[in-house]
Amino acid sequence: MARKLNFSSGPAALPEAVLRRAQGALLDLDGSGIGILEHSHRGPEFGRVLERTEAAIREVGEIGDEHAILFVTAGATHHFAMVPRSFLGPDEVADYCHTGVWSGKAMDEARRIGGVHVACTSEPGFAAVPTSFAWSAHPRYVHYTSNETIYGTQWPAPPPAPAPLVCDASSDLFSRPLALANHALIYAGAQKNLGPSGISLVIARKDFLETGRSDLPPLDQYRTYAKERSLHNTPNTFGIYVIGEVVAWIREEGGLAAMAERNARKAAVLYDFLDQSRAFRPHAEPGSRSLMNVTFRGATKAIEEALIARAEQRGMSGLRGHRSVGGMRASIYNAFPEEGVHQLVQLLDEIERELPA
Amino acid sequence: MARKLNFSSGPAALPEAVLRRAQGALLDLDGSGIGILEHSHRGPEFGRVLERTEAAIREVGEIGDEHAILFVTAGATHHFAMVPRSFLGPDEVADYCHTGVWSGKAMDEARRIGGVHVACTSEPGFAAVPTSFAWSAHPRYVHYTSNETIYGTQWPAPPPAPAPLVCDASSDLFSRPLALANHALIYAGAQKNLGPSGISLVIARKDFLETGRSDLPPLDQYRTYAKERSLHNTPNTFGIYVIGEVVAWIREEGGLAAMAERNARKAAVLYDFLDQSRAFRPHAEPGSRSLMNVTFRGATKAIEEALIARAEQRGMSGLRGHRSVGGMRASIYNAFPEEGVHQLVQLLDEIERELPA
Repeated sequence: MARKLNFSSGPAALPEAVLRRAQGALLDLDGSGIGILEHSHRGPEFGRVLERTEAAIREVGEIGDEHAILFVTAGATHHFAMVPRSFLGPDEVADYCHTGVWSGKAMDEARRIGGVHVACTSEPGFAAVPTSFAWSAHPRYVHYTSNETIYGTQWPAPPPAPAPLVCDASSDLFSRPLALANHALIYAGAQKNLGPSGISLVIARKDFLETGRSDLPPLDQYRTYAKERSLHNTPNTFGIYVIGEVVAWIREEGGLAAMAERNARKAAVLYDFLDQSRAFRPHAEPGSRSLMNVTFRGATKAIEEALIARAEQRGMSGLRGHRSVGGMRASIYNAFPEEGVHQLVQLLDEIERELPA
Repeated sequence: MARKLNFSSGPAALPEAVLRRAQGALLDLDGSGIGILEHSHRGPEFGRVLERTEAAIREVGEIGDEHAILFVTAGATHHFAMVPRSFLGPDEVADYCHTGVWSGKAMDEARRIGGVHVACTSEPGFAAVPTSFAWSAHPRYVHYTSNETIYGTQWPAPPPAPAPLVCDASSDLFSRPLALANHALIYAGAQKNLGPSGISLVIARKDFLETGRSDLPPLDQYRTYAKERSLHNTPNTFGIYVIGEVVAWIREEGGLAAMAERNARKAAVLYDFLDQSRAFRPHAEPGSRSLMNVTFRGATKAIEEALIARAEQRGMSGLRGHRSVGGMRASIYNAFPEEGVHQLVQLLDEIERELPA
């Protein structure tokens, strides 16, 4: 069976070269005679995997020693609760930038712990990232979602915050050069640009981690992962392996600058078509448009259904929008091929040309 | 490279047939044209994986509708804290059976939340499971570790508890028929008998789950996983896939009764040798011996080092005991081949025969 064009928002398309390497590693990791799923997390073979994965992340992300690289066996939703539990006191306030479903869920968890101040919002339509801000007096941290997978918006640059930034970068980490300045902690579920689901990557300032509560269970404290190199308990060893291979692939492809250039080109092809289309219209506003998730609607429901049906016939999968908003969404992360975007635009164009004049 | 004999205590050897199927699924799951790592957790293809995995677990474990099957993106250590957080009030007491390192860690977490009563212990040597018990007046639950990987002991039957049992079955779940009676909740990190690390399987009574706290973050409540079929957020999709394949393999091999028979035979070969050996002696006492982790010492340190070195030469890996206790440990889970146990005994015998008479 030929591989399909996978527009899924996550878990999402991974580089085929990485998947082929992983096939070999399932039976035999690096010539060790034991597969990656079967190696002890405390043995030298997995030790080398962990080391090279961290090294690749540091090299590709240009991340220095003041930051820790953590692998947490959990998705981003877990961090929605883990961040305030560690860093927000009951009498403290954290500022949240509200740009859609995911920031809303993150705020819900922070409200269980302490005060939440909505410093900016793109309600009700969530079609753009905010440009005006009302910060609280002394926010413990400022949380934002760098890319909103459901509405298809993305911060072109981090918000101008008066406190350490905490960023949910699940859907755009390593899709462009990392803007580490002012960030205390960045977390990302791996299943978009980095690897499989069931693991998240955290990049955090070591001095910030030390300000967290120290009376929580060890696995609820980020400092545990930093101190024990993510080996306090058995980590998701396969996830770490795949992330390492994906980041090595990013390096081979030219690094984050090359990713950003390619991703911008891919997204432009789609947005350029959508902006002049009669049959389809983009959801997000210029200046806030996601390069990762291009959300759009058909002029009619019938047009949307025609697109979905014909896309499936051509081996294009995963174009339906999130169940909460409907419409269409083309997720085109790092590993999504440029040619696939052209194939989609060709189909959109065909449907448009069939419309009555 | 030929596959080694992998005595690792976990992550551990998996059936080669399963690894070969997983190789194919990495590029193309079930002929879908998309790999298992890349499929949306909300799509029909992964939906079928989840369904067949749960069905296989229910069939092989003979688990009825009153129990929920949950997949939690975390290892057993996470449950050490998650169980008391959900089920233990600050003024309540839970009884713990203390059989080694893992039960100790589980108690540490419960003590953060409420009262812990040590109802039985096999301190200081942890060479046998307890046979006398002093239960508290009204324990909220009774926690035990069915198999102790570090000391190599295993409960031949669950402790005779006066309250619902909570069991950490990480290292022997599905190695023998399931004794569900009296159990409220069983959790198991997957990386011994079930699959890869980074995921745990929970089998729990639905009515017990409803007695848990409901004001915690959704991912901290077991009921969330039950209500949303482990899809509240993106689960470890690959882990669920592999567990499904491993449990299907168990079924093909004759089910849990066949596993128990084979595991007993494998362990007997080793214990029978150790019991009559001058060069090596087993750690655990008869009646408490683990069929999963056979722990033993050499008569001298030199004998131990000779064994480790010569084992490596013969492609036998992972025989060193846990760093906290030293000595040797042969972990021989379901997927460890019977022939491999004979090869190890042959080597032990050779070393013994070289001793001065």
